[in-house]
Amino acid sequence: MNTFGRYLKITTFGESHGPMMGAVLDGLPANLPIDPAVITAELARRRPAGDAVSTSRIEPDEFQIVSGLCDGKTSGAPLTILIPNVAQNSEEYKDVADIFRPGHGDFGWYHKYGTMPGPGGGRLSGRETVARVAAGAIVKAILKRQGINIYGYTKQIGPICAAEREKEFIEQNPYRLPDRAAAREAEKLIADLRAAGDTIGGQVVIVAENVPAGWGSPVFGKLDATIGKAMFSIGAVKGVLFGEGLSFATMRGSESNDQLGPAGPLTNHAGGTNGGLSNGAPIVVTLVVKAPPSIALTQKTVNTKGEPCAITIKGRHDCCLCPRIIPVAEAMLALTLFDAFLERKLA
Amino acid sequence: MNTFGRYLKITTFGESHGPMMGAVLDGLPANLPIDPAVITAELARRRPAGDAVSTSRIEPDEFQIVSGLCDGKTSGAPLTILIPNVAQNSEEYKDVADIFRPGHGDFGWYHKYGTMPGPGGGRLSGRETVARVAAGAIVKAILKRQGINIYGYTKQIGPICAAEREKEFIEQNPYRLPDRAAAREAEKLIADLRAAGDTIGGQVVIVAENVPAGWGSPVFGKLDATIGKAMFSIGAVKGVLFGEGLSFATMRGSESNDQLGPAGPLTNHAGGTNGGLSNGAPIVVTLVVKAPPSIALTQKTVNTKGEPCAITIKGRHDCCLCPRIIPVAEAMLALTLFDAFLERKLA
Amino acid sequence: MNTFGRYLKITTFGESHGPMMGAVLDGLPANLPIDPAVITAELARRRPAGDAVSTSRIEPDEFQIVSGLCDGKTSGAPLTILIPNVAQNSEEYKDVADIFRPGHGDFGWYHKYGTMPGPGGGRLSGRETVARVAAGAIVKAILKRQGINIYGYTKQIGPICAAEREKEFIEQNPYRLPDRAAAREAEKLIADLRAAGDTIGGQVVIVAENVPAGWGSPVFGKLDATIGKAMFSIGAVKGVLFGEGLSFATMRGSESNDQLGPAGPLTNHAGGTNGGLSNGAPIVVTLVVKAPPSIALTQKTVNTKGEPCAITIKGRHDCCLCPRIIPVAEAMLALTLFDAFLERKLA
Amino acid sequence: MNTFGRYLKITTFGESHGPMMGAVLDGLPANLPIDPAVITAELARRRPAGDAVSTSRIEPDEFQIVSGLCDGKTSGAPLTILIPNVAQNSEEYKDVADIFRPGHGDFGWYHKYGTMPGPGGGRLSGRETVARVAAGAIVKAILKRQGINIYGYTKQIGPICAAEREKEFIEQNPYRLPDRAAAREAEKLIADLRAAGDTIGGQVVIVAENVPAGWGSPVFGKLDATIGKAMFSIGAVKGVLFGEGLSFATMRGSESNDQLGPAGPLTNHAGGTNGGLSNGAPIVVTLVVKAPPSIALTQKTVNTKGEPCAITIKGRHDCCLCPRIIPVAEAMLALTLFDAFLERKLA
Repeated sequence: MNTFGRYLKITTFGESHGPMMGAVLDGLPANLPIDPAVITAELARRRPAGDAVSTSRIEPDEFQIVSGLCDGKTSGAPLTILIPNVAQNSEEYKDVADIFRPGHGDFGWYHKYGTMPGPGGGRLSGRETVARVAAGAIVKAILKRQGINIYGYTKQIGPICAAEREKEFIEQNPYRLPDRAAAREAEKLIADLRAAGDTIGGQVVIVAENVPAGWGSPVFGKLDATIGKAMFSIGAVKGVLFGEGLSFATMRGSESNDQLGPAGPLTNHAGGTNGGLSNGAPIVVTLVVKAPPSIALTQKTVNTKGEPCAITIKGRHDCCLCPRIIPVAEAMLALTLFDAFLERKLA
Repeated sequence: MNTFGRYLKITTFGESHGPMMGAVLDGLPANLPIDPAVITAELARRRPAGDAVSTSRIEPDEFQIVSGLCDGKTSGAPLTILIPNVAQNSEEYKDVADIFRPGHGDFGWYHKYGTMPGPGGGRLSGRETVARVAAGAIVKAILKRQGINIYGYTKQIGPICAAEREKEFIEQNPYRLPDRAAAREAEKLIADLRAAGDTIGGQVVIVAENVPAGWGSPVFGKLDATIGKAMFSIGAVKGVLFGEGLSFATMRGSESNDQLGPAGPLTNHAGGTNGGLSNGAPIVVTLVVKAPPSIALTQKTVNTKGEPCAITIKGRHDCCLCPRIIPVAEAMLALTLFDAFLERKLA
Repeated sequence: MNTFGRYLKITTFGESHGPMMGAVLDGLPANLPIDPAVITAELARRRPAGDAVSTSRIEPDEFQIVSGLCDGKTSGAPLTILIPNVAQNSEEYKDVADIFRPGHGDFGWYHKYGTMPGPGGGRLSGRETVARVAAGAIVKAILKRQGINIYGYTKQIGPICAAEREKEFIEQNPYRLPDRAAAREAEKLIADLRAAGDTIGGQVVIVAENVPAGWGSPVFGKLDATIGKAMFSIGAVKGVLFGEGLSFATMRGSESNDQLGPAGPLTNHAGGTNGGLSNGAPIVVTLVVKAPPSIALTQKTVNTKGEPCAITIKGRHDCCLCPRIIPVAEAMLALTLFDAFLERKLA
Repeated sequence: MNTFGRYLKITTFGESHGPMMGAVLDGLPANLPIDPAVITAELARRRPAGDAVSTSRIEPDEFQIVSGLCDGKTSGAPLTILIPNVAQNSEEYKDVADIFRPGHGDFGWYHKYGTMPGPGGGRLSGRETVARVAAGAIVKAILKRQGINIYGYTKQIGPICAAEREKEFIEQNPYRLPDRAAAREAEKLIADLRAAGDTIGGQVVIVAENVPAGWGSPVFGKLDATIGKAMFSIGAVKGVLFGEGLSFATMRGSESNDQLGPAGPLTNHAGGTNGGLSNGAPIVVTLVVKAPPSIALTQKTVNTKGEPCAITIKGRHDCCLCPRIIPVAEAMLALTLFDAFLERKLA
């Protein structure tokens, strides 16, 4: 379905080439001041930077809040944000309307609904995430006022790994790498891939600082589980890892346990949760991001009649999704944490 | 909360040292034949094997189905399974009743509920999963009749990786490794760890074969997202990866895309899903499992008054969770897939 | 919250004096043809007729479907309808911004949210129902194609009871009375009430013909329960009665039971359900509707500071809600029945 | 489904002639003291009194709490109550196993699930409500400690209406009538009906005193709507009315509005809610209860092959459901109000 969250619910709607995208946020407490500028800022962070790494379809994202605000504060009513689509170009998709694009959801959509998802991927398009970012911006700002700081960075783009963690540099380069040398390498890599008509995967890290201990729930509502669901609901995310991630496979209990002091965990191998509940250390989650499946190279595929054919995808596409996935993942983490904050009130 | 699933709901209850564990399955279609032997078999697979790798607390798991069956078939009413606890020993926990165990959920539980979770971890105990395995056994058997085969194996225990994929060997060794040489190495490693009072992490792989294309949902209900949530709801799971997993970070689109033929994907890099919908290829999900946090080595911690102290955990504990997590993860995958099967009926 | 339904979900948003009202319908099966004219028609039925019985605030209700349709058919994506507000006049409410209106939800809203609900009642306004009617129109039309016919009529307005059941006359008079004589009496009554600055209650009957037997669920999801919830979610509904309604209190089992023949119930005392499941007879539900609380007479009340004061409500208000509640109740019944239709697919 | 509630969830399971009934309460805040005696007391109130008005199947209802309590307090884990069935007698139902009982849910169940619901009505039996009463007893006691008092009485049995409101007498007579003269008349009426093999309907009133203003939600989650759903989820309830009930149909706005003073509403025509939110006045809800459909008189019906036949129901049945429905309705009101209490915490 198109709704996420249990106490704070976000419902999104709209298709890539339809008139608008939208989000309804239901469950925000009343009387919280909302500054629309935070939405503008987060949408700007999600927008393609005009560089080679991202798509050249650039939407102005001039949103409108049409409900839920009263004198600049939440009213208790559902808060709705509409974001018109203006830069769509369905012409680009005409030739491939009946052909499944490898690596895309078209094939599954067709087997479920019996039709193709529409131009630009319809509801399957990454454009859908604009609504999440807009709604998440509000929630991220509310959490910020509670002292919770959410941010993300690119850890790896293909063979290039960030060795440094220069936090200030993250938002100063189109890759959101926290490492100047890695960013220079990335520029070259992306240029080569653009020339080759190919794309590349990577990893991003999302962090939430100052989450109090005791958020989450012990069994099916583990904080890891709800965050995991949130992150896997973002297209192209093929792996979610907490704390030490894959290293846990080779660590002994004596190495992976975070011993405790009066102020909480003395280390943060776990990435901020134990037994599904936050432990007061930063939530650290790593996403494995696959390469964008829309490539200019010719690929084998079939059409809706099951006939084999070849496909060469034109359109305007991202070369690596890492930088643009970061604001989306931050938004999803904010929505998930606020849900846990509300659930905590009921314990 | 203690309920999982949207169309098929499982609710579990019971604490580690309480009189019983239980599961209520609500939403099973009527008139499906149920053979209780499948529950017996799956509970046996989850039960510690009496070897060094697992805990020495061995429960007989003599379950009772108290509702939902009529003449050996589902009736449409909720199906409830009760599983008595008989081998609990709260004495083992008396000394540490007020001390937070590093790596456990005690600390978060205390900050949420203001009390300790009870002897043996109460609701946080791995014992809770017995109810999932019992309920999942039923669903796994129903899926099996639909042709869907779910199984799992240990891919890695600490430094030992399975090089072979000898499927028949999996259930013949206590580590569920598909590789005879690796199993021999594991035996030695576990013996060393037991002697050292330490534990170890690993990785397991869970597979579902013959899932039809078109299960799942495009946005927040992505099959990856619901499977991800299911897997992260299992204690000790710190990472979930689909298909190629971490390798996606370095793969180009031309490498990671699964090109298509008339029979579906020609490769299965994706692990069976695209855009949140199954594509007909096997669902392949890898779990990163941390080392059991209950170790016999002395660790720094604090008690509920915030006073620093040391803890040495006695009790009876697993040395590596991989083998016993497999039936739990299979059960969770079965529950998740059946939910998607039901959702598919509504499209 | 602002969402109704379990398998088919409707979420509404917007405030009386905000820029627009909206509805998101999530869960419609794909490939169902939708004719927007059915929305136009139902919105016209809900719109004040320009007569004395209803408010003089008349909205054009020029709606826009902004998602979920593809070539005139449902796509499987959430279907969103936006309906601008253009005739609001907040001036009318300025004087009473801090005064609780007797019989309205202001008082409870204030105690819940700590603020007043906004001009025109904000989210509490009957204007909210325009979104339900728009969405319900689509569902009503889908059910119609399945042979299920939903309609309603006014049974009683104050002292005037409809003695006849002239179905064709219902939509030909502003009261939706199925009785010409009663309609003539109603005209006089309404004129007198307008003159007196007062309002009046009544009863309406909503019917769904040709609902198959076996819809609904035996325990908490009884069809009566979900219909009951749907009806009580409409402002001013103070009673919901099935079939014989209040007469059940004096009927013997031998009188109230519907005996059965090969074609189903031989009578329809029950109003179409037994044990929470439809029995194939028409669903017949009666709503007791209270008089609109906005009256021109002076009433005792308090302001938000708790100070006693008097209130005389100007604004533009309905004199009797029965006729305008009918399309809303039909919409809610359609939404509820379609949910049951979907749930039936899972049995 | 078999779950009710949004923040506090109750799931019930078990069939009339199965080994036990059960309830899982999920969402109770931690650290609330629970005295099992309140369950004993409420189950006793629900149990047939051994008089003519109720069934002669008398269950001891010796319940067991198997999870969720720690040192006599709620732990935050789901609280589960099991209540064995011991007095069932399936012999009584053998002859009519394939015949639909008029006025029962058998017919709808069969059309939904393709089978009969089992002896004694299986899941459709009134026996299911024992689980609700047990769980509701806990919640009712918690609300009581918050100052909220829930009680009910029989307002009418067939032609007999209670003229007095002698509160102390309610629990002193098997009809729960608050009127000694009416109780004497009822005794005679019931004796006559028993002799005639017939049954009778009635009305009950359920009251919740001291509910604070501001509980409930403005749109689909109106307190009236959730209470309405709760009440209609009880078998045999065919009408739900708030406050003045049917009289609202003839009341003018100037009569039905509750004017306000500094302490809240000056009258309580509305029955405690406006616009879906509580207003501080007592919640007063009236239920119209149909006659028990199991009568000893011969009725026309059909069997599962659609063949006409006659049925004469033996078994042990209630003659009027009013007195025994009261504790069930009180339990459902308690569960609904506590849910609203929790929801209020999130505003």
